[in-house]
Amino acid sequence: MLIPPTYAQQLHSWFSDLQNRICHALEVIEEESQILDIYQNWQSGKFEKRHWDFQQNGGGQMRILENGRVFEKAGVNVSCVLGEFAKEFAAQIPGASQDPSFWACGLSLVIHPRNPYVPIVHMNTRHIITTKSWFGGGIDLTPCVTNDADAEFFHQELQSCCNRFNPDYYPKFKKWCDEYFYITHRNEARGIGGIFYDYHNTDNFENDHAFNQAVGETFLKTYPEIVRRNMEKIWSQPEIDTQMKKRGRYVEFNLIYDRGTQFGLKTGGNAEAILMSLPPTASWPA
Amino acid sequence: MLIPPTYAQQLHSWFSDLQNRICHALEVIEEESQILDIYQNWQSGKFEKRHWDFQQNGGGQMRILENGRVFEKAGVNVSCVLGEFAKEFAAQIPGASQDPSFWACGLSLVIHPRNPYVPIVHMNTRHIITTKSWFGGGIDLTPCVTNDADAEFFHQELQSCCNRFNPDYYPKFKKWCDEYFYITHRNEARGIGGIFYDYHNTDNFENDHAFNQAVGETFLKTYPEIVRRNMEKIWSQPEIDTQMKKRGRYVEFNLIYDRGTQFGLKTGGNAEAILMSLPPTASWPA
Repeated sequence: MLIPPTYAQQLHSWFSDLQNRICHALEVIEEESQILDIYQNWQSGKFEKRHWDFQQNGGGQMRILENGRVFEKAGVNVSCVLGEFAKEFAAQIPGASQDPSFWACGLSLVIHPRNPYVPIVHMNTRHIITTKSWFGGGIDLTPCVTNDADAEFFHQELQSCCNRFNPDYYPKFKKWCDEYFYITHRNEARGIGGIFYDYHNTDNFENDHAFNQAVGETFLKTYPEIVRRNMEKIWSQPEIDTQMKKRGRYVEFNLIYDRGTQFGLKTGGNAEAILMSLPPTASWPA
Repeated sequence: MLIPPTYAQQLHSWFSDLQNRICHALEVIEEESQILDIYQNWQSGKFEKRHWDFQQNGGGQMRILENGRVFEKAGVNVSCVLGEFAKEFAAQIPGASQDPSFWACGLSLVIHPRNPYVPIVHMNTRHIITTKSWFGGGIDLTPCVTNDADAEFFHQELQSCCNRFNPDYYPKFKKWCDEYFYITHRNEARGIGGIFYDYHNTDNFENDHAFNQAVGETFLKTYPEIVRRNMEKIWSQPEIDTQMKKRGRYVEFNLIYDRGTQFGLKTGGNAEAILMSLPPTASWPA
């Protein structure tokens, strides 16, 4: 069994701190929305905490906001676990084929807004250790209604974040994101992309950690801004129908293709935490 | 490339005839429901036909009833296709590891009723030919509200159907069904089971075909009866919440575990026809 690294506490503190700041930022938006009549049927949401234990060692804390004004369902999870990969899985993981021990710590979030004009967002940043170690993560946006200005702002901020570390990152990680979040059987992208990176290790832990942190900061800089730009827009049934169908596609991607979901469910992870990414409602019209 | 068997026409005619009779039986129920006030917000549904072509050879006919009174979404598909399995798939299919050619013909249906007291049902009966050949299929029921009398009636009729062929069938195929329709990550069954059989070949084609036909007849004998027993029951929001959550589990099973779905999507099948099994709406409360 692997021993948690000396920097485990540093990483866990970062992810927990990021979780606090993200949940706070979303709760502030819930409060702000009180002046908007379109949300009068709902109460301002607050995050509820749920702890869970991993079967072998470690666990996590889920923060769930449900049925809020602006956010219909938001899950922001931090988990830190120590375990061993199942044999059939270990062979696919760098550095795990001989010794299946792993340590993994990360933050994962998915936010499903009520207003179809506010895009769905997903972010994940994580650190994994086997006999090797690396960072992985990304942010991607799934609007139900096309909005070029938001898309441009979002991608520019991601590019600017990446460029502070390496000019090659953005084109590489954007492409990776487009390829990863693709619903092959529908021949369509899940959303408008963003960045995705994995097995990220430049032999400079501090720098790689700083990049991973910068991705988290970029979430805080972009998503609340995009929410505020759109949350006052009035929607009606056709936009809800579009949103429900888009949410259905989101479910298809997550259950059929998402490696994190497959990984989690197959390594005996907490199903409730893993499937927190699923939308509050979805539809599949015939 | 495999040549369709001499009995291809016989099988295709049977599946098409069964499709006609099932769709008619459901439309009759839609008409009957006109006297029930609880369905007054909706119109009686009629099946719409949609043809599709398989990439290599053959195709199918989907029959879709959407937004009816009793049936919120029902898909009854017949497909007959001639093709070749992809290499990574052929090794898992009996008789296909050397020669990946296959011929497959079958009927598949999933019905999602509006009333939470009326159970969801799934049936599939099919014949597949590689260098070997076999029948496969089954029926299983997913009630949102427990109903012991329905469950007993349904299982008794399936047992009686099986017993006309072989007393070993029912216990074997019921167990197979319970094991197959299990949502491992939730530690729960998808529904109350039924029967499931595959690679079914007793070296007596006529008898095996007759068994497959008897399963189709048992659907016609049981499901319309179960619908009529429950369709007048008045529901309210708590039962809808239960139904929406059960539908969410149905989606999880179909997208994560169902071999037919994986098989269809991975062999370049028609995504629209394959995913017709998904419920019209579903929910994942936090």
